[in-house]
Amino acid sequence: MCRWAAYRGEPLYLEELVTSPAHSLIEQSHHATRAKTPTNGDGFGVAWYGDRPEPGRYRDILPAWADCNLKSIARQIRSPLFLAHVRAATGGGTRRDNCHPFVHENWSFMHNGQIGDFEKVRRPMETMLGDDLYAARNGTTDSELIFLLAFHFGLREDPLSAFADTIGFIERLSFHMTGSALVRFTAAFSNGRTLYAIRYATDRRAPTLYAAPMGRGQGYCLVSEPLNDDVDTWVEIPDGSAVSIGEEGLDFVMFEPGNSIALHPAREAI
Amino acid sequence: MCRWAAYRGEPLYLEELVTSPAHSLIEQSHHATRAKTPTNGDGFGVAWYGDRPEPGRYRDILPAWADCNLKSIARQIRSPLFLAHVRAATGGGTRRDNCHPFVHENWSFMHNGQIGDFEKVRRPMETMLGDDLYAARNGTTDSELIFLLAFHFGLREDPLSAFADTIGFIERLSFHMTGSALVRFTAAFSNGRTLYAIRYATDRRAPTLYAAPMGRGQGYCLVSEPLNDDVDTWVEIPDGSAVSIGEEGLDFVMFEPGNSIALHPAREAI
Amino acid sequence: MCRWAAYRGEPLYLEELVTSPAHSLIEQSHHATRAKTPTNGDGFGVAWYGDRPEPGRYRDILPAWADCNLKSIARQIRSPLFLAHVRAATGGGTRRDNCHPFVHENWSFMHNGQIGDFEKVRRPMETMLGDDLYAARNGTTDSELIFLLAFHFGLREDPLSAFADTIGFIERLSFHMTGSALVRFTAAFSNGRTLYAIRYATDRRAPTLYAAPMGRGQGYCLVSEPLNDDVDTWVEIPDGSAVSIGEEGLDFVMFEPGNSIALHPAREAI
Amino acid sequence: MCRWAAYRGEPLYLEELVTSPAHSLIEQSHHATRAKTPTNGDGFGVAWYGDRPEPGRYRDILPAWADCNLKSIARQIRSPLFLAHVRAATGGGTRRDNCHPFVHENWSFMHNGQIGDFEKVRRPMETMLGDDLYAARNGTTDSELIFLLAFHFGLREDPLSAFADTIGFIERLSFHMTGSALVRFTAAFSNGRTLYAIRYATDRRAPTLYAAPMGRGQGYCLVSEPLNDDVDTWVEIPDGSAVSIGEEGLDFVMFEPGNSIALHPAREAI
Repeated sequence: MCRWAAYRGEPLYLEELVTSPAHSLIEQSHHATRAKTPTNGDGFGVAWYGDRPEPGRYRDILPAWADCNLKSIARQIRSPLFLAHVRAATGGGTRRDNCHPFVHENWSFMHNGQIGDFEKVRRPMETMLGDDLYAARNGTTDSELIFLLAFHFGLREDPLSAFADTIGFIERLSFHMTGSALVRFTAAFSNGRTLYAIRYATDRRAPTLYAAPMGRGQGYCLVSEPLNDDVDTWVEIPDGSAVSIGEEGLDFVMFEPGNSIALHPAREAI
Repeated sequence: MCRWAAYRGEPLYLEELVTSPAHSLIEQSHHATRAKTPTNGDGFGVAWYGDRPEPGRYRDILPAWADCNLKSIARQIRSPLFLAHVRAATGGGTRRDNCHPFVHENWSFMHNGQIGDFEKVRRPMETMLGDDLYAARNGTTDSELIFLLAFHFGLREDPLSAFADTIGFIERLSFHMTGSALVRFTAAFSNGRTLYAIRYATDRRAPTLYAAPMGRGQGYCLVSEPLNDDVDTWVEIPDGSAVSIGEEGLDFVMFEPGNSIALHPAREAI
Repeated sequence: MCRWAAYRGEPLYLEELVTSPAHSLIEQSHHATRAKTPTNGDGFGVAWYGDRPEPGRYRDILPAWADCNLKSIARQIRSPLFLAHVRAATGGGTRRDNCHPFVHENWSFMHNGQIGDFEKVRRPMETMLGDDLYAARNGTTDSELIFLLAFHFGLREDPLSAFADTIGFIERLSFHMTGSALVRFTAAFSNGRTLYAIRYATDRRAPTLYAAPMGRGQGYCLVSEPLNDDVDTWVEIPDGSAVSIGEEGLDFVMFEPGNSIALHPAREAI
Repeated sequence: MCRWAAYRGEPLYLEELVTSPAHSLIEQSHHATRAKTPTNGDGFGVAWYGDRPEPGRYRDILPAWADCNLKSIARQIRSPLFLAHVRAATGGGTRRDNCHPFVHENWSFMHNGQIGDFEKVRRPMETMLGDDLYAARNGTTDSELIFLLAFHFGLREDPLSAFADTIGFIERLSFHMTGSALVRFTAAFSNGRTLYAIRYATDRRAPTLYAAPMGRGQGYCLVSEPLNDDVDTWVEIPDGSAVSIGEEGLDFVMFEPGNSIALHPAREAI
């Protein structure tokens, strides 16, 4: 099980969420007291937005707690919008290309969860990608593939709807190919302006998602698991919902997979 | 807390102890169910003896469970005497030079434990080393330094006595420098012919050490913690003892720190 | 431009060809005096056959000359058949999965050369792979893809014919997709019993290939470039030919791309 | 031979000097057309000053041209004062702790050159360090050791004088220990406000050093070798001189080793 944290608000040093000794993501990943998997040592990554439309990114395959570069970068860089992830591999080798956040154009994406029987649906999912997105696939994870498919389904125009269609497509494809379907998906993503998160699972057992105000003004933090024991601060976002955090603060909507996309294109490709 | 396993006997594929899915060192390090520290993701290493007097060695700083090279090497290489180690850093950065086993000449060494207040005694310990041993120090761990000091105290001639003197020296030095002393030391080492292990702690709380027959003939395996749940197989080696495994099988002796080495050389150097 | 060396004969320490200071592959790759590209710092790999049908393999993305593990492994391991490669990337990121030799089942493969306009034919080439071979693709290089396609075209049954068909297919596919075709291919591969090499280029400008007797008996070494200045030792293998080295010594045959494979399966898939 | 570039002036994206395709440090290090050593593949590093007194730093042991993290970071980060270095190891293994720039407190330092017979003077040089500086030594290079010794000799108070005394001390120590002395030293360093560089060699054959105005206002760039072929832009700084770049622009002074420091402290320690 992976862990992640994301922030949007007044510029904040990355270290406050990512590497500080008290209750940061890295500290949590090292001790992993509440985790179902023993630890999160299979790489990490951060993506942050600065002066340019596309984010900066730093990923590596060391355990995050052992990486001096991360400590220095997180201490130095201040950003109004960033995503951070530590990985416990469920599939896909331990290499940089498989570390979250994934970045394409000005979008960033990170994920906790998985697609059931991914190896059986991986190829038809890849076949769905247009040539540009196919060429943009660098790794072997289900997460990167979900992200690229979301572009196919309109991420640039309507992000939440694009992921709804993507997940709906994967569920129907899985059912078609294997007789059952399981997508567990607790993800955060951004275009550099708005920070989004979705919590959804086919079997209603999605990995957790929490939100809390952070910093001054309309700043918010989203996390896969609370970063400290101050339980009152963190509001659990229920399964089957999505949040978006923009200039106006946090919005909350219901989320369910779209069913408007037929399987025919994939069926032809299979 | 680190974990390790060592073997001497009929040639055995490294994978049987190191990487096999059932109850190997790597599997154990990943799940770490009995460990006091959360995991062992700070690097690993194997040293094996083959046709040459000095051992081969492979170390890296990835979590061992993520390393395809290790899987391939452990599956391919068969050896009558090898040491394998997974690291949970107590001090010294995560880098190859700090990964066990350490190798010098034909000797290999690995360790679970630590020196209390190591940073306070590190410099006078390094000052004790002759120029050749000083030049052989590549990393920053207490473990490598204990190993190099053992050469200073006669490892080549009388291994157990050399470590007794080394530990005695460190205890007296610590007491002299800091007013107290703590060495916890569960280590295995070899010259390519005999496999040795020592379990000792100043406070009688040394990390565990177990032995079990393995393979055909007089083969034995030594481990920091049992590799499987077949409890009857594993004999715990008590604190304050040492074992040596050679052609004739396993020998067991009492071990206590030597007190023959005065502090004067170190005192001059301080 | 990559460099490689391969050996079949009496068991030889890998270091004699791979890491020894005088005229080994690594030394050559570091200084690269005759190379057209400045250096070969984009990773390396060795595959060797031992007691098992499938080879052992060690790859990493450091420059080979900086890797202590490689030095130790090459000094320790003796093998009657091995392949070694240093990489100067023409495409595909610097990561382990893109380092040669590639291994699938008991076969190993390494390559110097490239497919012209690879990005334009990559996808239809991947589409040709059966599901098992598709799942076996871990990296993004043209080399790995040629290797996997060769399985599709019968590598297990008739190796030289399989590569002839593979290259013929790629040339026709390239021509079909882009209006021109260019494959440059100087490769070595093995099933653990016979060592094969092919030198071929569409434009008759294939990277060089040399052979020399080595060790005792019927031992031979194949290299992309001579490893020392003893020019008389090395016989250049001409463009458009293949060699196989087995129990009986070295065999030499002409090589040209096969034209028996129609493009129809690929055309459907595009 | 290493290469480096440093900048002080209006905030500039690191990529303009470090990673841009045209004539950056990385491009130069890859092709290395004028280099005496074949390439600079033994790691790299950047240190940049931002909002905090101490610099951020990113180092790794991959060849710089293969590192996606560096590309992303250099494209994202803008700084008024930064140092960048690519390494061709003359001594000290390829590992992060041996990559420049070195950082201690708010100071950063990078170096091209070497100490002759370093292994013979290394230990007495280390013995000179106070306990805090001794504990700050993480690697094994001569460069890091020169940097730490400069603190001992007053870097914080009078930087140029401190390096003069450091180099004078090393020359006398070398002569005392080995009968001859050779220090070649072309280095840049900073406290976050002023950028300094020194070019000096015992034998008057110091690696080159060039300066050029860059960006708007009083911005300057210092490099070990010109980054492009616009020869008129670059002014060569002669051997035996030092430059400092501050608010007021570039200052130029003569530089020679200090002789005020006697060898006695070291002699006692030996």
